[in-house]
Amino acid sequence: MRLALVGAGRMGRRHAANIVAAGHELAAVCDPDPKAAAQVSRLTGARRMELGKMLAAGAAEAVVIASPAAAHAAAAAACVRAGVPFLCEKPLGADLAASRRLAKLAAERGAYGMVSLNRRYDRQFGMLRDGVKKGQVGKVEIVKLVSRSEKVPPLAYVKSSGGLLRDKGAHFFDLACWLTRQLPVAVQATGKRLFCPELAAADDHDTAMITLELADGALCHFDFSRRAPYGQDERVEIMGSKGMLQCSFPPAHACVRVRADGVAEAAAPKSTWQEHYAPTYAAALDAFTASLRRGKPPPIPIGAGLLAELIAAAAARSIASGRRTPVDTAGIDPACVAA
Amino acid sequence: MRLALVGAGRMGRRHAANIVAAGHELAAVCDPDPKAAAQVSRLTGARRMELGKMLAAGAAEAVVIASPAAAHAAAAAACVRAGVPFLCEKPLGADLAASRRLAKLAAERGAYGMVSLNRRYDRQFGMLRDGVKKGQVGKVEIVKLVSRSEKVPPLAYVKSSGGLLRDKGAHFFDLACWLTRQLPVAVQATGKRLFCPELAAADDHDTAMITLELADGALCHFDFSRRAPYGQDERVEIMGSKGMLQCSFPPAHACVRVRADGVAEAAAPKSTWQEHYAPTYAAALDAFTASLRRGKPPPIPIGAGLLAELIAAAAARSIASGRRTPVDTAGIDPACVAA
Amino acid sequence: MRLALVGAGRMGRRHAANIVAAGHELAAVCDPDPKAAAQVSRLTGARRMELGKMLAAGAAEAVVIASPAAAHAAAAAACVRAGVPFLCEKPLGADLAASRRLAKLAAERGAYGMVSLNRRYDRQFGMLRDGVKKGQVGKVEIVKLVSRSEKVPPLAYVKSSGGLLRDKGAHFFDLACWLTRQLPVAVQATGKRLFCPELAAADDHDTAMITLELADGALCHFDFSRRAPYGQDERVEIMGSKGMLQCSFPPAHACVRVRADGVAEAAAPKSTWQEHYAPTYAAALDAFTASLRRGKPPPIPIGAGLLAELIAAAAARSIASGRRTPVDTAGIDPACVAA
Amino acid sequence: MRLALVGAGRMGRRHAANIVAAGHELAAVCDPDPKAAAQVSRLTGARRMELGKMLAAGAAEAVVIASPAAAHAAAAAACVRAGVPFLCEKPLGADLAASRRLAKLAAERGAYGMVSLNRRYDRQFGMLRDGVKKGQVGKVEIVKLVSRSEKVPPLAYVKSSGGLLRDKGAHFFDLACWLTRQLPVAVQATGKRLFCPELAAADDHDTAMITLELADGALCHFDFSRRAPYGQDERVEIMGSKGMLQCSFPPAHACVRVRADGVAEAAAPKSTWQEHYAPTYAAALDAFTASLRRGKPPPIPIGAGLLAELIAAAAARSIASGRRTPVDTAGIDPACVAA
Repeated sequence: MRLALVGAGRMGRRHAANIVAAGHELAAVCDPDPKAAAQVSRLTGARRMELGKMLAAGAAEAVVIASPAAAHAAAAAACVRAGVPFLCEKPLGADLAASRRLAKLAAERGAYGMVSLNRRYDRQFGMLRDGVKKGQVGKVEIVKLVSRSEKVPPLAYVKSSGGLLRDKGAHFFDLACWLTRQLPVAVQATGKRLFCPELAAADDHDTAMITLELADGALCHFDFSRRAPYGQDERVEIMGSKGMLQCSFPPAHACVRVRADGVAEAAAPKSTWQEHYAPTYAAALDAFTASLRRGKPPPIPIGAGLLAELIAAAAARSIASGRRTPVDTAGIDPACVAA
Repeated sequence: MRLALVGAGRMGRRHAANIVAAGHELAAVCDPDPKAAAQVSRLTGARRMELGKMLAAGAAEAVVIASPAAAHAAAAAACVRAGVPFLCEKPLGADLAASRRLAKLAAERGAYGMVSLNRRYDRQFGMLRDGVKKGQVGKVEIVKLVSRSEKVPPLAYVKSSGGLLRDKGAHFFDLACWLTRQLPVAVQATGKRLFCPELAAADDHDTAMITLELADGALCHFDFSRRAPYGQDERVEIMGSKGMLQCSFPPAHACVRVRADGVAEAAAPKSTWQEHYAPTYAAALDAFTASLRRGKPPPIPIGAGLLAELIAAAAARSIASGRRTPVDTAGIDPACVAA
Repeated sequence: MRLALVGAGRMGRRHAANIVAAGHELAAVCDPDPKAAAQVSRLTGARRMELGKMLAAGAAEAVVIASPAAAHAAAAAACVRAGVPFLCEKPLGADLAASRRLAKLAAERGAYGMVSLNRRYDRQFGMLRDGVKKGQVGKVEIVKLVSRSEKVPPLAYVKSSGGLLRDKGAHFFDLACWLTRQLPVAVQATGKRLFCPELAAADDHDTAMITLELADGALCHFDFSRRAPYGQDERVEIMGSKGMLQCSFPPAHACVRVRADGVAEAAAPKSTWQEHYAPTYAAALDAFTASLRRGKPPPIPIGAGLLAELIAAAAARSIASGRRTPVDTAGIDPACVAA
Repeated sequence: MRLALVGAGRMGRRHAANIVAAGHELAAVCDPDPKAAAQVSRLTGARRMELGKMLAAGAAEAVVIASPAAAHAAAAAACVRAGVPFLCEKPLGADLAASRRLAKLAAERGAYGMVSLNRRYDRQFGMLRDGVKKGQVGKVEIVKLVSRSEKVPPLAYVKSSGGLLRDKGAHFFDLACWLTRQLPVAVQATGKRLFCPELAAADDHDTAMITLELADGALCHFDFSRRAPYGQDERVEIMGSKGMLQCSFPPAHACVRVRADGVAEAAAPKSTWQEHYAPTYAAALDAFTASLRRGKPPPIPIGAGLLAELIAAAAARSIASGRRTPVDTAGIDPACVAA
C-alpha cells in the first residue's frame, strides 16, 4: 500500500519504520520542519510534500497522522475532505470541541478514519478482552486500571497533549469501555498536585483517581500518576460474577535474589513503555491497512477517540465540582467499543 | 487477669477460647440467652451473671464486649460508669449518634476502653505500617485497599451490623488512616446493588468504590464487594515518592499445575477469613491485657472506632448525594491512628 | 481411644498435645527420664509407667512411639510381641539391620504398625499426589525435590538420627515414591562437606545430590542441604508427558516492597518447619486412630519406612563408591507407596 | 566492519540480519547451496564466494561461521590459517577430537577466535553472574540448571548436532562454569529414552540428569529434557552461604484468570526460544566486533567451547558406565570462564 506520513517527529519516525518493515511504500512525508522531514525522507525514500498538495496530487492511498496533538484535527479534516482514508494518533483534536467537529465532519462525509488507540493491540489486554467476551468473568462488576508513568513529562508536552486526563487518561478510558464492551454513564474524580506543583501552570494534576460507572452498573476505577518511583506501572483487573482477570506491565520480575534475611528481591531488566508497546503500533498499522484492503470499516472508529475525550472532559468537570458528573454519550455508536 | 465476657455467640466463644488459652481466668459470662451463656460456662467454668450485677460485684478486672452490634454501646457505657476497663468489638454503637455519645461519655469519665479493630494485629499489615513509618515509600501518594468477601452475609446480619460501610468498611477506613498515620479530609463514594437486590430492604449496597483524601493530600481508594466468586480477597497497596508496599490475603497460591497448553494453574488449600485472622483476635486481647497491666493507655482508643464510623457516614452521604463530602474529624485525637 | 506414649521429649510432648486435642485419652507415658515423664503426666493426667509393665497391664489400646531414634525398634518390637498396635516416628531402627529385623518380626506376627512419615499429610503434597493420580501430568518423567534446612542440627543429633540421608532424606525418598506411586531401581549420589567440616566425625555430609531412577524410568533428583542461609526451603516438582506440578515451602512471600530502583522485595513473617508441619502430626494421628477403629490396615505401613531407609543406604554406598547403585526392594510391597 | 558469513541457513540468515542491523557491511556469503547463498545475497548485497577464495581475496576483516555443526571446524581452521578472526557457532567440531585439533591449531597460531555461546549475553543470566561476582550468594554451594525444550528436534538434526549433551548440554555446562567462574572436576550422569525411542538410532537420550562437581566443591545439577509438554523451560538457581539467585525463562506469566473455584490460571503469549534469545545473538556479534576493534582478546575464547564439550563427553561416559567420571581440564585456561 502507498502511504503518506504527516508528522516526522519521534512518533512519526516510529510509524515510518513500521510502514517500511511491513512492506508498504512510504510515498510522502509532510512536516513543516524541513530537517525532520528530510530525515524521514533519507531513511525511506519518501518525497517531502506539503499536506494539501500531497492530497491534491493523490500521492498516497492512505495517510498516517502523527503530528503534534494540536495539529491532528486539521490534518484529519483535510483527509476527510480529500476522501483519503487516515489513521490518526489520539487525541483527535486540540480540545473536545475540535474533536467533536472532526467527528461530525467525518460522519457527514462517511469518511474512513481510524484513531490509533494502540493499547487495544497489546496481546495481554487482548487476552483479557477475549476472556470477558467468552464469559470467563461472568457479568462484570468491578474494573480496576492503574497507569503510573515513569516520570513527569515536560511541561510543554503536558500543555500541548491535553494533560493527565486527555493524554494518559484517554487510553485507559477507552480500554475500560473496550474491555467490557460498554458505554459509560457517569464519573466521579479527584485530582491532586502532590509532587509537581508546576503543573498548576497547565491547570493539570500529577495524581488522579476516577470512578466510572458503566451502562450495566459495573464500577471502574482508574488510578493515574505522572511518576511511579519504581518505573512504569500499568495494570488491569476485571472482576465479575464468575471470576477475575488480571494483567500487568511490566509483566513480571525476571531475576530473584533470596537474601540471607529471607527477603526475596525480584528485579527485571528495565523496559520503557516505548519498548513495551512497540509491537502495538505495528499491529495498529496492520489492522488499518488490512481493513482498507478488505473494504471493511476501521477497527477503531473515530467515535472511540471521541468517547475517550468525553470521559476525560466529564472527569475534569467532576474534579472541579466535586460532583458525580454524567458522561454525555449521545451520538456515540456503541459498536466503537463493542465490535 | 480476671475477665468477664459480654456476649456468648460465635464471636464471644472465640474470645472465651482466647482468654483461656492466654492463661487468663474467665470469671463471668453475660448473655441474655441462657443456653449460649451455659455453653461458655461449661467450657470455661465462668459464672453466668447479669451484666449490671457482675459489674456491681466487681467480678472482673476487665470486660470483653462481644455482643451483637446494637448492644455494644449500652454494655460499654455500663463499664464506663462502673469504672471497669473494656475491650469492645466494633462498631461502638448501633448508629453514629450512639457511638458519639459513648465516646463522649468515655472521654468525660477518663475511661479505659479499647475498640477491637483486630486487623491492626495482622502481621502483614504490621509489616506495611512499619515500612511506611521507616520511610520505605517516602511521602505517601496513593493507597489502594481491596476488600471482597466470600459471600453475602444474611440480610438480618447486614441490618444489625451497620451494612457495607459501617461493618466491612470500618476495618479498612481504620487501616487506611492507621497505615498512613493520617486523618481523613473528604470522601467521594459510589454504591451499587449489582447482584444482591434484596439489600434494598436494608438500604445497603453489595458493591462500592470510595475515594478518600487524607490530610496531606494522598488519595486512598477502597473497592468493596460482598461477594468475590473466587473467595475472600483483601489487598493493600501504598505508593509514595520512594517506592511501593503491597500485601494480599490469601497471601499466595501454594500448588502450581502447568498444563500442556502452557497455562499455569495455581491453587491453595482454601482458608476462610476466620482462620486467616484468628491470630489477630488473640493478639488484640494480649495487647489489651498487657496495656492494662502496665498502666498504659489502650492501644486502639475509642476515638479510632469513632473515626472509622465518621468516614463510613460521610461515604454514605456521598453515595446519596453524588458529591465530595468532608469528613468531620473535630475532636478526634490524631494519636488514635498515628501513635 | 485409650493411648500410651513412649518418649516424653520435644516430639513426645507434641504428640501428647495432639492426643488430647483430638479427644483421646492419654492413659500412660513411658520415659526413662522421670522429669520428662512427670511433665507430660501433669499436663494430661497420664500415668507414668515402664513400657513392659504398661503393655502387660493392657493399659492402652495403642501406642505412639516418639523416643529417640535408637530406641524406636525395641519399643516397636515390644508392641509387636504384646499384640498392641503402634504408630512409630521414623526411622524404624538405629540402623538398616535393626529396621529390617523389626519389619521382619512385624510381618511374621501380622502386627499393626504405622510409621509416621508425616509429610504425607501435608495438604500441598496431597494436592500433588492427587494431581498425579488423576493423570494431570501424564506419565511421570522428571521429579525434583529440594530440602534445605534452616540450620545445621547439633552433632549429637546428627549422630543419633542417622545423618543427612537417613534423617532428612527418608522423608523425601518416601515422598518421591509416594507421589509417583512407584518403587525405586537405582541411585547415584554425591555428598560434600562444604560448610560444616565437623560432620566428618559422624561420617556425614552437609550437602548432597542424589539421582534416583524409578521403576518406570522416571528420574528423581534430590538436593539436600543442612543450611539454607535464607531459611527452610522445601520444594517438589513433577513433570510428565502432559504437564507439571509444583509446590514449595514456605508457600509464598506475603508482603512486597517495590523499591525506587524497581527491585521488588518480598518478605513473609518467618515460619519454622515445626509450625509449618504442625498440622501433619495431628493428621497422622487421626489417620492412625481412624484406621484402627475401622479395622483397616495402617495408612503408612512399616514397609514404607524400610523402603526409605533402603534408598538412604544405597545412596550412602553410591557416595562412597561413585557408582550407580541398585536399590534392593525385594520383599517391599509396592502398596506401601501406591495404595 | 566488513564481514563474511559462512553458512546461509536459518542461523546464517539470523546473523546476516544482525550484521546489517548493527551497521556492518556483509561483504561475502559462503554456502555450498547456491539457492541459500543467493537469498542472503539478495537481502544484503553480499557477494557469493567460495570460502577459500574469499579468505585469499581478503574480502572480509572477520568471518561469522554459522554452517552445520560438522562443517564448523574446517571453516574455523581455514580462518586460522588465513589469519582472519572468526566468530563460530558451537560446537567447535563434529566430535571432541575435531574440537581439540581446532583448539590446538588456534592456540599454536595465536588465532583470534570466538565461540558463540550466546546465552552468556542473556541479560538475566548476566544479572545472576554479576550477583555471584559481587558476593550476593557468598560461597557457591548448590547450582541447579533446568533446560527442557518445547519439542524433540528432527532425528537428522540430533545426529548432526551432537545430541542432547553436546548440543543442548554445551550451553548449560558453559553457563554453570561461567556463572560460578569455576572449572569442573567430575560428573555423574544418567540418561533415559522415556518418550522418544527412535533416539536409540542416534545413541542419544531424551531425558538426562547430570551432577557436576566444581573445583571448590559446589555441586551443580542439570535436568535436560527434549520435550516439555507446556513449552520451553529454562531455569537457573545458585545457592551459596549468603543467599540464593534464581531466574527462569519464560520469565513470567502475563495474564491471570482467577476462576470461581479459586484457582488462578496464569497464561502468557507464547514465545519460542528463538524469540527469547534473539537479542543475545546480536549482543554476541557486538561483543565480537567491539573486541576486534579495540584489539582485545575474544570475549568467549575457543577454550570455553572446548570445555563445554569436555564436560559433555565425560557425562556421556558416566551415563554408559554408571560411574563418577573426572572431567579432564588439562590445558584449559580458567580465564575462559572466569574473566
